[in-house]
Amino acid sequence: MSAQTYTVAVVGATGAVGEQMIKTLEERNFPVGELKPLASARSAGTTVRFRGQEIVVQEATPEAFEGVDIALFSAGGGVSKELAPEAAKRGAVVVDNSSAFRMEPDVPLVVPEVNPEEIKKHKGIIANPNCSTIQMVVALKPLYDRYGIERIIVSTYQAVSGSGAKAMAELEAQTRAYMNGDDMPLNVMPVAKLDKHYPIAFNVIPQCDVAQENGYTFEEMKMVNETRKIFGDETIGVSATCVRVPVLSGHSESVYVELKSDYDLDEVRELLQNAPGVIVQDDIFQQIYPMPANVAGRTEVFVGRIRRDLTNPRGLNLWVVADNLLKGAATNAVQIAEKWISFKA
Amino acid sequence: MSAQTYTVAVVGATGAVGEQMIKTLEERNFPVGELKPLASARSAGTTVRFRGQEIVVQEATPEAFEGVDIALFSAGGGVSKELAPEAAKRGAVVVDNSSAFRMEPDVPLVVPEVNPEEIKKHKGIIANPNCSTIQMVVALKPLYDRYGIERIIVSTYQAVSGSGAKAMAELEAQTRAYMNGDDMPLNVMPVAKLDKHYPIAFNVIPQCDVAQENGYTFEEMKMVNETRKIFGDETIGVSATCVRVPVLSGHSESVYVELKSDYDLDEVRELLQNAPGVIVQDDIFQQIYPMPANVAGRTEVFVGRIRRDLTNPRGLNLWVVADNLLKGAATNAVQIAEKWISFKA
Repeated sequence: MSAQTYTVAVVGATGAVGEQMIKTLEERNFPVGELKPLASARSAGTTVRFRGQEIVVQEATPEAFEGVDIALFSAGGGVSKELAPEAAKRGAVVVDNSSAFRMEPDVPLVVPEVNPEEIKKHKGIIANPNCSTIQMVVALKPLYDRYGIERIIVSTYQAVSGSGAKAMAELEAQTRAYMNGDDMPLNVMPVAKLDKHYPIAFNVIPQCDVAQENGYTFEEMKMVNETRKIFGDETIGVSATCVRVPVLSGHSESVYVELKSDYDLDEVRELLQNAPGVIVQDDIFQQIYPMPANVAGRTEVFVGRIRRDLTNPRGLNLWVVADNLLKGAATNAVQIAEKWISFKA
Repeated sequence: MSAQTYTVAVVGATGAVGEQMIKTLEERNFPVGELKPLASARSAGTTVRFRGQEIVVQEATPEAFEGVDIALFSAGGGVSKELAPEAAKRGAVVVDNSSAFRMEPDVPLVVPEVNPEEIKKHKGIIANPNCSTIQMVVALKPLYDRYGIERIIVSTYQAVSGSGAKAMAELEAQTRAYMNGDDMPLNVMPVAKLDKHYPIAFNVIPQCDVAQENGYTFEEMKMVNETRKIFGDETIGVSATCVRVPVLSGHSESVYVELKSDYDLDEVRELLQNAPGVIVQDDIFQQIYPMPANVAGRTEVFVGRIRRDLTNPRGLNLWVVADNLLKGAATNAVQIAEKWISFKA
């Protein structure tokens, strides 16, 4: 290990993912020399805890990035669009968790288990994929390499933490209201900025982001487009149905994947067992399968219900679960920064 | 309307579905002359309410079916296996909500919107399909008739009421415990009779019934086998992933259907709008789609998120929601009895 340390800015330091990024930097013993927690003017002056110290949050301005080596952004697309180029201009490498730059041709979109080499092509900004995409491609990577992938049909069971701390608070408040027979507060789900808000407590909502012209939601199209970009393969077919469920944290996915060649089910299981970042929990006879309740705080992607599809001999069904705030966001972002360091070394 | 009335037994009268059957008989103004609520010896002596009267629950014995015209069973497969033949022997027409007889060749498996004529072939017992199958085939029927169905890949979001009143009580008790920071009671989910029990509050469980030899669960194989039997078409491919979610009542399904011929999306929408028992709620731009929170107490099947699949030109994606205790159980059973009466007339 090099003794070199880095000045690391975390933009959106007081949000659900930003907080987790700071925790992840500490837990993974990232070589942070100085931590600069940044946020909106409203949150500036509050403190975050890092390595036993309280550090004052500063306002995220262009000038705040002077001297920053690595900037982890998780403050929404608007902030990223405005400030990520400013950070890059001042010499920082940006790892951006928003969707602002993901599909830009000259911005690498990286999952370290899948396409780490892309990091080398960055021009100042590296994009962190969408949470539901990350866990799926980590699970599919060994199958892509061995058999090729014709197409994917995925239905998600997404936790509210994907919509931030306010959504988590709303699920808890709605649950409490429901149990007390009171009216539920309806302000955040499914999409805070849209007109209509529905209960998520004791409900499921088949909308995780705004609608796109083709009738799919933006969340669904992220899974389509990001999967292709990460694998560097525009021929992969992807269709997604993204659904919010009353789970606080941990995304689950029912994944149908049609491989390009015939496969052996035992080999598939072995490939998954040996895949980096994947943990197989797969024995329905012993009631062993991944569940969001069991993945909180875990950085790996969990795969179970591995079985041959009944409608196509090259079809395979998987159940994929991960902590969306960790592997789906903070952990993947810090892993990108770690890889970047290792390539420099 | 004929003035004839019928003596109707409800077996399992004190369970979640049995209670609903009695309510449904009343609400649909079924020509009940006498109602005979039957249950286990343990529940005998309690009362149920029907048309403003308290009626004493009797023990379900073979003799209790003397003079019964129609017997609606919803007391589990064991009770059905033992007592449905006894009821039929005594001249009753049995509509059985358990899985005991569904796949028997000489037992019609009926969804009145799909295959009502099968009722005429009964030899004393008519089977009511599984809840998750019923709502799917109602939605797919007009598409099957117009285009033919090559295959179906479905992922479910199933409410706990599908596991009965105890499961509903457990979700509420677990939720209360979680909110109070107490340990959750773990006795019912995912399958009461299995060894391991997991929380369903703030969790999802990818198991809705016991495992079958092929690695699918019984619930998943019900969707495969029952769909083929109801359509009378063994060539339909079906693969299912059945998942329990923390919803009290109302099953949701993400359905991918591959049709046998090309289709026009506007025509699909029109076919669904005109299909009996189907209500289309489909405008993602206005945030209109079905959700379990909105279907409680409704007897129809709700369809939304109707969109062309992105991986196959004959593929179509649908989001299908219904009240699993009503169209998925009690309503469908009473509708079968209504059809049986109309065929006799």
